[in-house]
Amino acid sequence: MSTTQTSKIEIIKSSTTKINSVDFENLNFGAVFTDHLFECDFKNGKWQKPVIKPYAPFLIDPSTRVFHYGQAIFEGMKAYKDDNDDIWLFRPDENYYRFNKSAVRMAMPEVPSAIFMEGLNELLRLDEAWIKKGKGNTMYIRPFMIATGTGVVANPSDEYKFMILLSPAKAYYSGEVKVLIAEHFSRAANGGIGSAKAAGNYAAQFYPTNLANKEGFQQVIWTDDATHTKLEEAGTMNVFFRINDTLLTAPVSERILDGVTRKTLIDLAKSKGIDVEVRPVLVQELVEASKNGTLKEIFGAGTAAVVNPIVGFSFREVYYELPKIENSYALQLKEHLTNIQHKLADDTFGWTVKV
Amino acid sequence: MSTTQTSKIEIIKSSTTKINSVDFENLNFGAVFTDHLFECDFKNGKWQKPVIKPYAPFLIDPSTRVFHYGQAIFEGMKAYKDDNDDIWLFRPDENYYRFNKSAVRMAMPEVPSAIFMEGLNELLRLDEAWIKKGKGNTMYIRPFMIATGTGVVANPSDEYKFMILLSPAKAYYSGEVKVLIAEHFSRAANGGIGSAKAAGNYAAQFYPTNLANKEGFQQVIWTDDATHTKLEEAGTMNVFFRINDTLLTAPVSERILDGVTRKTLIDLAKSKGIDVEVRPVLVQELVEASKNGTLKEIFGAGTAAVVNPIVGFSFREVYYELPKIENSYALQLKEHLTNIQHKLADDTFGWTVKV
Repeated sequence: MSTTQTSKIEIIKSSTTKINSVDFENLNFGAVFTDHLFECDFKNGKWQKPVIKPYAPFLIDPSTRVFHYGQAIFEGMKAYKDDNDDIWLFRPDENYYRFNKSAVRMAMPEVPSAIFMEGLNELLRLDEAWIKKGKGNTMYIRPFMIATGTGVVANPSDEYKFMILLSPAKAYYSGEVKVLIAEHFSRAANGGIGSAKAAGNYAAQFYPTNLANKEGFQQVIWTDDATHTKLEEAGTMNVFFRINDTLLTAPVSERILDGVTRKTLIDLAKSKGIDVEVRPVLVQELVEASKNGTLKEIFGAGTAAVVNPIVGFSFREVYYELPKIENSYALQLKEHLTNIQHKLADDTFGWTVKV
Repeated sequence: MSTTQTSKIEIIKSSTTKINSVDFENLNFGAVFTDHLFECDFKNGKWQKPVIKPYAPFLIDPSTRVFHYGQAIFEGMKAYKDDNDDIWLFRPDENYYRFNKSAVRMAMPEVPSAIFMEGLNELLRLDEAWIKKGKGNTMYIRPFMIATGTGVVANPSDEYKFMILLSPAKAYYSGEVKVLIAEHFSRAANGGIGSAKAAGNYAAQFYPTNLANKEGFQQVIWTDDATHTKLEEAGTMNVFFRINDTLLTAPVSERILDGVTRKTLIDLAKSKGIDVEVRPVLVQELVEASKNGTLKEIFGAGTAAVVNPIVGFSFREVYYELPKIENSYALQLKEHLTNIQHKLADDTFGWTVKV
């Protein structure tokens, strides 16, 4: 290992690389990590010296707060390599902003841009050989922060660890996705943490999702917990509905994540002349639109899957199949967005940022 | 370190002890741990060999699921040493049952009794010198389970770690506790995980609690998230209200933890001839009772604090102070319960279990 210093980040290079053992054509999402990671600890009320170092396990005390009281947040981002070997990020400021919004809600310290952004850029440059060219190849980026203070008392931690991991990725979802509309379980409370990208929100979804899986549904469409009448998210993604030629999606709220892909698709759809309505969408409306043939599409939107078309939904034991259509908004939007991300289409929005 | 085998548990004894460095009269809650811990891993669909070993940090991968998707649950229990040096647990079956209920809700494997109970008993016997005699001295017990599978994909983990830590304790809360009734923030959703002892529930409370602290309130009384009209929990405890001579507490639900101290106090109060009503208690009812002088007491109930009297509450910017009364139910119940726990009063309920 050799140690160098770039700006304020200490860089400890791995003496070996795992890259030759990786089959880049057959990657399981989130399973393989690059040679290095970025790390910065928060102690004594301030962020300590940031470091890039070989990806490796670290020592942790059994009483560490994240295990007991769950202060843990993350982001999902992607980097892309174009045909000129330039590396691009997609709207990284949006993820940075949301990360710190999550931090505030979870009583964790905000991460300065100099740490988050410079750490990310430096790490991507160091492990750039892991970012493969060609559409469909991406580098999934996982910034996260955990409470590392010790002691089993239910108070906010006074120590934290911020890390960035890199995981080369192909597509996230595969196969046909049928969804079950939640009538009992919920993912978020009014005045809760549903709009934060907090670890605990995900664990809470696993059991209801497992129940749906057993009934043959890959995901759950979450509804508002008070009335179960409003359609809010699909699995871990925001959700869009196309009724006739209008695209509908719920407004962001305390219960709904302010998804970067969501807001991107809204702008992209509008730029194509598609009518977009951001308003509460009711379960009953969806059922009626399906019955009278005006429901054309449902799709999830998120960083990992980009756009995830849904083929049908179940509500109160009745399964509603979606029509197979030409000119799918989901596929058009996905194609356009991934082309922008991979620098294969003009980025008239200024969304892509060079590393 | 010496290795022995008791029943199915491997025991690796520490070659040293930290006990002489501990000031047992001045313990911060949850900060000091005994020489050993109990550990059992879940891998390949089954629980592996349980082990008791020296308390120490362990190695963990940065992509470990608990950091990213929050599968983490715990219990809080206590052990007591009587004047004959016998060690006692209080209703351990209740904690064991609730732990596995939490496990199911968080899509984690249930822990067999042979692991949970035998591990706990063996660990208490090994570190018995750390359990001090005398009322007020207790051994706080922290069983917990975390997802230890790796990979940043939002699915349930296939590997888990179950551990038990022991932390000698004095009292948990100190000083006067004033509470703020939540009108915006919430701790649990309908159909959510509020009744599970999941790590993420606690992190979600820190930010609203910090805001209350800044206004001079030590805790928040949580209300139902849909209407904010029903009084549900106080801080991390169940909550009781005394109006005239009737004790009121909310029924357990998906949003409210089925507290062992809560159910114990209900039975204890009834045995003393106190009228207990388990029903939704409204914020408006509390305000009116305070105004007309019938509100006598509010107190929290939980394992750590046992009973935590509250001196006043704030609702919509108005502070309602509670009267100072003789014959406080809170103090009577706390005295009786701690006497049973410490074997200083007859345990007519059969709640105490010898280790």
